[in-house]
Amino acid sequence: MAHRPEDIAALAQELPDLAWITDEAQIARLSQDFSWFSPVLKRQLQDKRGDIAVRPKTEDEIRRVVGACARRGVPITVRGSGTGNYGQIVPLHGGLILDLSGCNAFLWAQGGVGRAQAGIRLGDFDKAAQPLGWELRWQPSTFRAATLGGLYGGGFGGAGSITYGPIAAAGNVLGARVMSVEPEPQIVELRGAEALLVHHKWGTNGIVLELEIALAPALPWVEMIACFGSLAAAMDFCVTLHGATPGIVKKELALMAAPIPEYFTVLAEHLPQGRHAVLMLVVESSEPATRELVAAHGGSVTYRKDQVEVRKSNRTLVEYCWNHTTLQALKVDKGLTYLQARFDPLRQKEQVLALHDELSPEVMLHLEFIRLTDGRHTCSSLPVVRFSTEERLAALAQRFEAHGVTINNAHTHVLEEGGKLRDMDRSALSAAQAMAADAAVAMKQRFDPQGLLNPGKLRGWGPGR
Amino acid sequence: MAHRPEDIAALAQELPDLAWITDEAQIARLSQDFSWFSPVLKRQLQDKRGDIAVRPKTEDEIRRVVGACARRGVPITVRGSGTGNYGQIVPLHGGLILDLSGCNAFLWAQGGVGRAQAGIRLGDFDKAAQPLGWELRWQPSTFRAATLGGLYGGGFGGAGSITYGPIAAAGNVLGARVMSVEPEPQIVELRGAEALLVHHKWGTNGIVLELEIALAPALPWVEMIACFGSLAAAMDFCVTLHGATPGIVKKELALMAAPIPEYFTVLAEHLPQGRHAVLMLVVESSEPATRELVAAHGGSVTYRKDQVEVRKSNRTLVEYCWNHTTLQALKVDKGLTYLQARFDPLRQKEQVLALHDELSPEVMLHLEFIRLTDGRHTCSSLPVVRFSTEERLAALAQRFEAHGVTINNAHTHVLEEGGKLRDMDRSALSAAQAMAADAAVAMKQRFDPQGLLNPGKLRGWGPGR
Repeated sequence: MAHRPEDIAALAQELPDLAWITDEAQIARLSQDFSWFSPVLKRQLQDKRGDIAVRPKTEDEIRRVVGACARRGVPITVRGSGTGNYGQIVPLHGGLILDLSGCNAFLWAQGGVGRAQAGIRLGDFDKAAQPLGWELRWQPSTFRAATLGGLYGGGFGGAGSITYGPIAAAGNVLGARVMSVEPEPQIVELRGAEALLVHHKWGTNGIVLELEIALAPALPWVEMIACFGSLAAAMDFCVTLHGATPGIVKKELALMAAPIPEYFTVLAEHLPQGRHAVLMLVVESSEPATRELVAAHGGSVTYRKDQVEVRKSNRTLVEYCWNHTTLQALKVDKGLTYLQARFDPLRQKEQVLALHDELSPEVMLHLEFIRLTDGRHTCSSLPVVRFSTEERLAALAQRFEAHGVTINNAHTHVLEEGGKLRDMDRSALSAAQAMAADAAVAMKQRFDPQGLLNPGKLRGWGPGR
Repeated sequence: MAHRPEDIAALAQELPDLAWITDEAQIARLSQDFSWFSPVLKRQLQDKRGDIAVRPKTEDEIRRVVGACARRGVPITVRGSGTGNYGQIVPLHGGLILDLSGCNAFLWAQGGVGRAQAGIRLGDFDKAAQPLGWELRWQPSTFRAATLGGLYGGGFGGAGSITYGPIAAAGNVLGARVMSVEPEPQIVELRGAEALLVHHKWGTNGIVLELEIALAPALPWVEMIACFGSLAAAMDFCVTLHGATPGIVKKELALMAAPIPEYFTVLAEHLPQGRHAVLMLVVESSEPATRELVAAHGGSVTYRKDQVEVRKSNRTLVEYCWNHTTLQALKVDKGLTYLQARFDPLRQKEQVLALHDELSPEVMLHLEFIRLTDGRHTCSSLPVVRFSTEERLAALAQRFEAHGVTINNAHTHVLEEGGKLRDMDRSALSAAQAMAADAAVAMKQRFDPQGLLNPGKLRGWGPGR
C-alpha cells in the first residue's frame, strides 16, 4: 500500500490543468467528515490525512487523474461533501482525495426517473426536479450539503424511507455509471440489481460517476409537531400512523423522547417542557386525518408549516431528524454521542418503553419510523447518549441487544463492522446474502484490481486491506 | 312503508320541469344493477321495480323532488350507474328511483385534493384530474361507467387499494355534502371521519351530493402480465411484490389461478394454457425491478403496455380484475358465480394453496392484493365458482371459513349480512366499532327521520326496515 511522495508530486505535474488542492489546512478539512459525532472515531481518525486533493470538473478529468493514480499505485479516497458519520471518506493511508463535488450536473428527470452526476447536492437535485413534478425518494437530514454520490456510497435513506424503504430496496435505483481504477480506466453502466453492488461500499469497489434513480412525485408536504405527555401514547400514535393508516401519505415520522426536544432551542416555543415530540411530514390532504389521530391519542399539534411557509422560513423539520437530531443536541452539549439501533417490528413499543425506563436520561431515545428493505414497518433509532467511556458506550449497546434490539456499530470505520456488517460477515449470511457479498467482492476485483480505492475500509477483501 | 299510487303521479305533476322517466322498460332497467352475478340475488331481486324515476340536473332539482317525497311518504332509492353487485340500488318497496348521474360536475382538483358531484363517472373524474397532475386513489374495474357517489355509497376501493387501502381508510375522504330527506331538505357538509358515516351505507342514511377526496399523483403506470407454472411460485411472487418491495410502486396486483385466464379470450395470446397469471400495474420506473422479481420466481412476462399504448388500445387490465374477472368469465360461461373472501395476512399463502388443492376447478381462485383499513397487507378474493345450488354455494363458503378465511356474503341485499356486516352486528363489535355503528344509525335518524331511503336494506335500523 506504500506509495512514494514523489508519486504525489508527479500527479499534479502530469495533469497541471486540474484543480489541485495542496494547502495543508484545506487537505486536512477534506480528509475529515462528521465522524467526530463518535468519540471513538474521533480518537482514531482525527489525524488522518490525504496527501493531496483534486476537484475535477469533467468526467475526462476524473479519468485522467484516476489513470495516473493507477499507474503510480496511489490510493484514492472519493468524497462528496463529507457529511458522513463513519469516517468513510477519511483516508487511512494517505494518497489522493478525489473530491467529486465539482461534477454535479443535473442531467434529466422524466416519467418518474432522474439522472445526475454523483457530485450534485441533494437539495440542488430537488430544486431542479421539483418544477418538473418529481423529487428524490429520500431526503437525509444533510440534504443541503450532501451529494447524491455520497448518499449512494455511504448513506441509508432518510425522510422518504418511511414510504420507499432504504436506497437499497428494489426499484429505487435503476443504474449507475461506474469507473474502474486502472491505468486506462473503464466506464461501465451497471443496471438494476447490479448497480446496488456499489451502494454503501464507501467508494471501495468503483467510482460512481452518475446515478439514475426512481423519483417520487413532488407532493405538497406539511410539517407538523405533535406533543404527548406519555411515551406510550406517543409510540401508539407513531406505530398507528406508520403502519396502520394506508390513506395517510407520509414522508417523515420521528419520535423524540423527552428531554431531546429541549436541545431544539430554535423550536422551543413549540416544545412544551417534559413532553415527547413527534416530528412529521405528511401530504397536505392527510393533515385533517393526522390531526384526528393525534387527538385520538391525547396529543396536541404544536407546530404546522405548509410548503410555502417552509420555503420562506428556510427551516425544515427534516434538519431536526436523522443524525441532525444528534447534531442539534451536540450544538448544546459537547458531551453527547449516539448509537444506532433497529427495533423488532413485532416488539418495537415494548422495547422502546423498556429501554427508556432503564436508560433514560443517560440514553435519550430518538426513533425514526421506516420501512426495511424487505418492506416491514419498524423504527430504527439514533438515540442520543451521554458519553462517559468507550466501555460504557459498548455496555449501553449491549443493553439494547439484551432487549432484542439490533445494534449497528456507528463507531467503526471498517465497513464490515458497521451498519452493513451483514453484507460481508459470511458466517451470518443467508445464501442470497452470501451471493450478494460475493458479487460485491467480484465488483471490487473488477473495478479496483490494484486495491487502491479507500484502502483499509473493506477488510473482507484481500488486496488493499 | 306503503305509499299510494296517486302520490307517485302527483310527484311528476308537482314538478313538471324535471326529467321524469315513466317508461316501464326504462324503469325496469333503472331498478336493476349487476346483482345478477349472484343466482341468489337474481332470484330475489329480478322482479323488483321502482314506480317512477327522475334524473335531476341540479342540486335544487334534487332538493325539490326529495322534499316532495318526504311530504308524501314516498321511498327514495338513490342510484348512479348501477354497477354494484349487491342489489344496493334495487328498490325493494317501489317508490322513486333518484338517478344522480345527471349531477356530474367536476368541481376542482388542487394540492392533492379534489371535489366533484356524486354523479360524475370515475373515468371522467380521472380525465379531468390527470391533466392537473392528479388521479383517483381507487379505480374499480367499473370505472368507465361507475359514479363517484356510487363507489362511495356501495364500493370498497379497487386498483389503488394496494397502496391506499379501501375508501374507508383514514385520510382518503375529506368531506361529503349530504342532503336529508325531510319536507324541507337540509344540506350539510360532513368533514373528516364524520363523512365516512355515510360511506358504504347504500344510500340509506343520507343523499350524498358531492364528495371531497384525497387524490393520488397521476403516475405513468405500466400494465404487465406475468405467468407462472406453479401457484406457490405465483403466490410467493405476489406476496413479495405486495409487502416486501417498498421501492416498487404499484397500483394493482391480482392473481388468477388457472384456469381463470382461459376466460380472458381477448388476451389469449398472452396467456399460455395451464399457467397462473398475475396482472399488475406498476409505475414505469419500477418495471426493471418487477421484471427481476418475476424472473427470480421463475415466471415470465407475457404482456406489457405503457400508458400511451393503454390509451391507444382503450384496453386496460383493470377491466380484468376485481369483479370484472367474474364478468369476463360470465361472458364465456353463464353457469358461474363468485364468492367474496379475505385471507389472513399471516397465512394467506397456505390458505390459498389449501383451498386451490381442495376445491379447484369448482372454485377458481382470483386474488386481489390490498392493504386493509388498518394497513395490513393481505389478499382478498373474488373466486369464480361453478354454480350448482344455493346450498352448495353456502357449503363452499363454509370450506373457506374452515381454513380460517373470512367470507363476506356477496349474495345478500341486506347491508348487515354482507361485506359490512361487522359494522352493524353489535355482538361482534369492538367498542370503537360499536361507536361507529351507533354513529351511522344516528346519521340515519338525522338525515332520514321518516325512514324513506332505500327501505329494507338496513335491517338494524327501526323505521323503514
